[in-house]
Amino acid sequence: MADVAALVESARQGAPRAVARLISLVEGASPQLREAMAAIAPHCGNAYVVGLTGSPGVGKSTTTSALVSAYRAQGKRVGVLAVDPSSPFSGGALLGDRVRMGEHASDPGVYIRSMATRGHLGGLAWAAPQAIRVLDAAGCEVILVETVGVGQSEVEIAAQADTSVVLLAPGMGDGIQAAKAGILEIGDVYVVNKADRDGADATVRELNHMLGLGEARQPGDWRPPVVKTVAARAEGVEEMIAALDKHRGWMDERGVLAERRAARAAKEIETIAVTALRRRMGELRGGKRLDALAARVAGGTLDPYTAADELVEGVTEGG
Amino acid sequence: MADVAALVESARQGAPRAVARLISLVEGASPQLREAMAAIAPHCGNAYVVGLTGSPGVGKSTTTSALVSAYRAQGKRVGVLAVDPSSPFSGGALLGDRVRMGEHASDPGVYIRSMATRGHLGGLAWAAPQAIRVLDAAGCEVILVETVGVGQSEVEIAAQADTSVVLLAPGMGDGIQAAKAGILEIGDVYVVNKADRDGADATVRELNHMLGLGEARQPGDWRPPVVKTVAARAEGVEEMIAALDKHRGWMDERGVLAERRAARAAKEIETIAVTALRRRMGELRGGKRLDALAARVAGGTLDPYTAADELVEGVTEGG
Repeated sequence: MADVAALVESARQGAPRAVARLISLVEGASPQLREAMAAIAPHCGNAYVVGLTGSPGVGKSTTTSALVSAYRAQGKRVGVLAVDPSSPFSGGALLGDRVRMGEHASDPGVYIRSMATRGHLGGLAWAAPQAIRVLDAAGCEVILVETVGVGQSEVEIAAQADTSVVLLAPGMGDGIQAAKAGILEIGDVYVVNKADRDGADATVRELNHMLGLGEARQPGDWRPPVVKTVAARAEGVEEMIAALDKHRGWMDERGVLAERRAARAAKEIETIAVTALRRRMGELRGGKRLDALAARVAGGTLDPYTAADELVEGVTEGG
Repeated sequence: MADVAALVESARQGAPRAVARLISLVEGASPQLREAMAAIAPHCGNAYVVGLTGSPGVGKSTTTSALVSAYRAQGKRVGVLAVDPSSPFSGGALLGDRVRMGEHASDPGVYIRSMATRGHLGGLAWAAPQAIRVLDAAGCEVILVETVGVGQSEVEIAAQADTSVVLLAPGMGDGIQAAKAGILEIGDVYVVNKADRDGADATVRELNHMLGLGEARQPGDWRPPVVKTVAARAEGVEEMIAALDKHRGWMDERGVLAERRAARAAKEIETIAVTALRRRMGELRGGKRLDALAARVAGGTLDPYTAADELVEGVTEGG
């Protein structure tokens, strides 16, 4: 058994292998996690967490890479967490195509990590915040969380960042697709990438129009800006970072940053608690209680609500 | 308050408005749901549930529509549940483009319903099985559940069908993309749609190759077939239905169908129970217990596991 305290200390000193091992504890839902998270807790809360989401093909990975370069040029330590199943960063073992991030691979000021938690009891909602916590404690000043903006869980993860960036590209279905995917509600900053393509200005106009359709804003409310980029040529990245800085400043000023972080912590706590309760449910009567209820529901002799009541009773009353 | 018993009886007689109202109760997480589900329970278990999943653009909606026509030609009552945020069926109110399903809109033997549950406490995992239950009780012999194969929750829903169909199209990244999205593990039948396009045969070959890479099969195990279709011209739809029939027959023979339905019921019960427990957590001390814990975790004075312990204790011991 590894010495968790030593591992955490080593990660805090910036040792990449220690950081990697801690995130592996998260992915594996290791029993040592509890100890690791307790040791990490006092060192969290310093990183600025940026979520990047968008459909496959909008250039999330390229944009992430360009942002990393820009933040590195500012001398900042950067963490990248890819929880996008369609990303070349995640599933990297399968593809071996982390090429585009290759320029950062040897930079000791950058941690790049993909999450592989499919099938895990708590899923991404459970693992992602804890991985962010590890990167935070390891001294990352900026953490970029890349998720695909299609799935419910993935959009929820992006929405829990300090600042959520929604990426679109011209001609991909544009604003209407974004509205359908529910991402018009979560963006603090919108980026129209591949802005050298036809239709970029139309997409920007459409987005601005749709963003203006919401309820009337109070003076001082945040109005999500729409930034044009060509991430592959690093064009517009400065404007994007300026928009992020502006949002961060606005959040600081209005106390929104603290609120968001508390909301993220609440979600994290709740997910850990729910996962523990689910485990208890699965273990009731040596794992047979749920099976017995399921057989009755599948057979039509019991409805799922009554079955759920029995399960809840079993967990809360030790029955 | 509506008379739930009358509503259920009316839905069982096939009244489309009663079916629609029952699914609205699901979407709205209505307090009447418990009563409705109890009344429905004895009438469930007759429908054959087919999940269709795949990335945006592979032609899920067109394939679904072609399947509906084919099953209708067999005289079967069909239900369609679209839980794909990028589908023209879901988000339909926004787009008004249910055009492609238009031919079925006036057919009393077809129910088409999109789910809009974003932001709901239990999400799609909570709502989809209950909506399927409603369509089942309403006498649908086949229920097609269309989900987008990108998000974690969405893939999980498709995986819980009696038969899971994974759709691909040539030149969309093909097998490797499928592997990355985790859908090579969940398909019982694979469909390469738009098979009149270049590269279709290569995609079929690649899929067959990747499907053969799994662990060695036992004699009698199911080997997922790969079917080529051009759904827009209804080509290959008969072969697709033959593959579905074959899978259903195999499941019946081996007792797999009953197993899958029990597993689906278990998941459904568990999700209802977890949602109830999450609600209790949120309500502890008038909603302030979780907030107080979250503030401490966000401030670094408490780790999330210890906070989760306190939350679980509050729910299970009334603290």
